[in-house]
Amino acid sequence: MTELRVVEEDFINLNPLQTGGRTTPDVRKAVNSFIDGYSVCDWCLGDVNTIKNPDIQGLRDDIGKFLGADEVILTNGCREAKYAVMQAVCKKGGKVLADVNRHYSTDVAAELAGLKMEFVQNSGSPEFKIRAEDYAKRIDEVSPDLVLLTHVDGNYGNVADAAKVGAICRKKGVPFILNAAYSAGRMLVDNKKIRADFIACSGHKSWAVGGGNIGLLGVNNDFKDKVLKRSSEYKNKILGILGCSARGSSAVALLNSFPSVKKRVKDWGKEVKNAQWFANKMLSINGVELIGENPHQHDLMQFSTPVFYEISQKHKKKGYFLYKFLEEKGVRGLKAGRTKNFKVSTYGLGMEKLKYVFEVFREAAKL
Amino acid sequence: MTELRVVEEDFINLNPLQTGGRTTPDVRKAVNSFIDGYSVCDWCLGDVNTIKNPDIQGLRDDIGKFLGADEVILTNGCREAKYAVMQAVCKKGGKVLADVNRHYSTDVAAELAGLKMEFVQNSGSPEFKIRAEDYAKRIDEVSPDLVLLTHVDGNYGNVADAAKVGAICRKKGVPFILNAAYSAGRMLVDNKKIRADFIACSGHKSWAVGGGNIGLLGVNNDFKDKVLKRSSEYKNKILGILGCSARGSSAVALLNSFPSVKKRVKDWGKEVKNAQWFANKMLSINGVELIGENPHQHDLMQFSTPVFYEISQKHKKKGYFLYKFLEEKGVRGLKAGRTKNFKVSTYGLGMEKLKYVFEVFREAAKL
Repeated sequence: MTELRVVEEDFINLNPLQTGGRTTPDVRKAVNSFIDGYSVCDWCLGDVNTIKNPDIQGLRDDIGKFLGADEVILTNGCREAKYAVMQAVCKKGGKVLADVNRHYSTDVAAELAGLKMEFVQNSGSPEFKIRAEDYAKRIDEVSPDLVLLTHVDGNYGNVADAAKVGAICRKKGVPFILNAAYSAGRMLVDNKKIRADFIACSGHKSWAVGGGNIGLLGVNNDFKDKVLKRSSEYKNKILGILGCSARGSSAVALLNSFPSVKKRVKDWGKEVKNAQWFANKMLSINGVELIGENPHQHDLMQFSTPVFYEISQKHKKKGYFLYKFLEEKGVRGLKAGRTKNFKVSTYGLGMEKLKYVFEVFREAAKL
Repeated sequence: MTELRVVEEDFINLNPLQTGGRTTPDVRKAVNSFIDGYSVCDWCLGDVNTIKNPDIQGLRDDIGKFLGADEVILTNGCREAKYAVMQAVCKKGGKVLADVNRHYSTDVAAELAGLKMEFVQNSGSPEFKIRAEDYAKRIDEVSPDLVLLTHVDGNYGNVADAAKVGAICRKKGVPFILNAAYSAGRMLVDNKKIRADFIACSGHKSWAVGGGNIGLLGVNNDFKDKVLKRSSEYKNKILGILGCSARGSSAVALLNSFPSVKKRVKDWGKEVKNAQWFANKMLSINGVELIGENPHQHDLMQFSTPVFYEISQKHKKKGYFLYKFLEEKGVRGLKAGRTKNFKVSTYGLGMEKLKYVFEVFREAAKL
C-alpha cells in the first residue's frame, strides 16, 4: 500500500492549505466508521441534505444558525458552491465582479458558467489590501450580475471588510457572495452582520474535516428558489449541485467536527495574537518583510525573505536548503525549493511550537 | 460524537449502493493516514491529477490501461463526470439520447447543462431490457448531440450490450458516453472493445473506495481537447471539473483500492454465478418474481414479493416487519418499510452468506 502520511504526527505543519483542516480524534473515529462508499445513505430520504440518521438535516440547521444564513446545503467543496450560485444567479455572458486577490477557482467557476470576470484592484505592495469602498465605484462602472468578495485571501491572508461590501451590495441591489474558505470555521462569520446573499465555505480547508471533499453553501431566503431550485423531474434533488453532493464519510466528518469548530472560533483572538507575534519575530530576521496586511489579522501570512534566497545561491542544496533544513528540524509545509518568499499558517499551533518554528527560521538564516 | 456505523461489521449488507464500495484494510489504513484536509496536496504540481507523491499520475495511467481509455481523470463522482462531458460536447439546447433505465443523475446533469433528454425504451415487464439495436433507430429520429448508455442500471441490474451501442455510435458518428457506475470496478470493462468516447465511473459505488466521493472519467483522444480543456487563465486546471476535484483522502483511497479491484474483476464470473444461484432460490419462495434480466447477469437484482406484502397486511409491525426480521437475523440493506418489491446486491458475499440470507428470507415468508 501507499506510504503512510505522517505530516501531522511527526512534524509541525505550516501549510496554509492544511492547518485548518486538521481532524480531531472524534472526526477520525467517525470517518473510519463511515468509511465505505455511500455509508451516510443507510437512512436516505431522497437527498443527502435531509438525512436524519446520521443527522445531516440537524447539522445544516445548526450551521445555518452558526453562520447566520437562512439555509445551508452541503456541496463537494467551496468552488462547487460558487459555481452553483454563479450558474443560477447570472445571465449567460454576464459579469462577476470580484477582488483581484480572489482564489483561482473563482475564475474557473465563472468561466465554466460562461461569465466574464471584472475586478476590484488591491492597494499594491506591500499590503495588497482590498478596500471595501472600491466596490461601490466598480459596481457602478461594471453593472455586475454578481459580486464576490474573498473574505480572507489565500495569498496574503488579508481580512477584507465583508460587512462594508455587504452594505454596498444591498444599497446597489446586487447579489453578493462571500468566499469564506479561509474565514468561516476559523473565525466567527456572522452573516446577520455581513448580509451576504451567499456564503461559500470549505470544509476541508477550515472546518477540521477529513475524509474527502466537502463544502457548504449558505443561501438567504431571497435566493432560495433560484439557487436551491430542484430538478424539474426529481423534486428532492437540487439542480445546481447535481442532486446529492458530499455523499460519503465527509458529511459525517463535518457532523463530528462542527462541535469543535463552534468552540475554536471563540479562540480566534488568540490565534491572531499568536500570528502577530510570529510575524513580528520573523520581521526581526535580516531583510524579511511581511507581504500583506500589517498588523496582520489572520494565521495565513506571506513573507519576502531575500536572506534565504542569498543563502540558496551558495548552498550546495541550492533552493532546497530551506525546505531540507526545516524538515530536519521537524517543520513542514513550505513549498520545496522556495526561498525568495513563502507562505505559512500559524493556525492551531500555539505559542510553544511557534517559538520553536521561529528559532528554526532564525537558525536557517545563519546558514 | 456520532453513533458509530457497524453495518459492515455486524451485518450482512445487501444494499446495492454499498456492496461495491466496501473498503479493504489497505484503503482504511491509507485513508486514516491521509484523513486531514488537502492531505494529497503535500507535493502538488498544480493539479491533483498530476501529483506523483502519492502517485495519482501513475494511478490514472494504470486505470487508463485497465479501462482501455486514452486518458482518465479524477472527478468528484460519476455524475460530475457525466456533467463535465455533457457541458463540453453538446451545444446549448441540444439533446442527449439515453436508455430509459438511466440513473436520475443523468437527467439532472443534462438539465444543469441546458440539454433535453430523449430516450430509448426498454422491453417492459418483466425483464425491462435495453435492446442495443434500438439506439440506431432513435439516433436517426432524434439526432442527439450525445448518446448515453447505462451499462448496468441501478433498478434491475440489467447488463446492456455496450459494444453493440458503441458500434452503432461509431457508425452514426455520434459521441458516446458509457455510464459504468455499476460495471467498471466490478467486472472488466474494456473500452478497446466497447469504443465509447467517454466512460464515467463511480469510485464509491464500485471501486472499493471509501473516504468521501470520487469518480473517474475516461476520455478518448478524439475528445481530449474538448472535454479536458484547460481554463483559459489557469493552464493546469481542467475547466469542466473546476480544476481539482477529489482533493482529499478519496484519491488515496482509490490508489489503495485499485490493486484489489484489478484482482476482483477476475472473479466476476463467480459473482454472477452466485447471483444467479441466489435469484433462483428466491424464485422458489411463493410468488416471488425477478424484475429484470433472467438468467441474471449482475449482483444487483430486484424482486417482486407479494408474499411479504400479504404478511405486512396482518403483521403488527406492518410494512416494517421484513426489515426488522432481517435486522434481527443480522441482515441489512433493504429499505425499511418495503415489502412489495425490493432490490438487493449479492456482491462479494460468497456462497456461505448467500445461503444464510436466503434461509432468512424463506423464514420471513413463513411469518
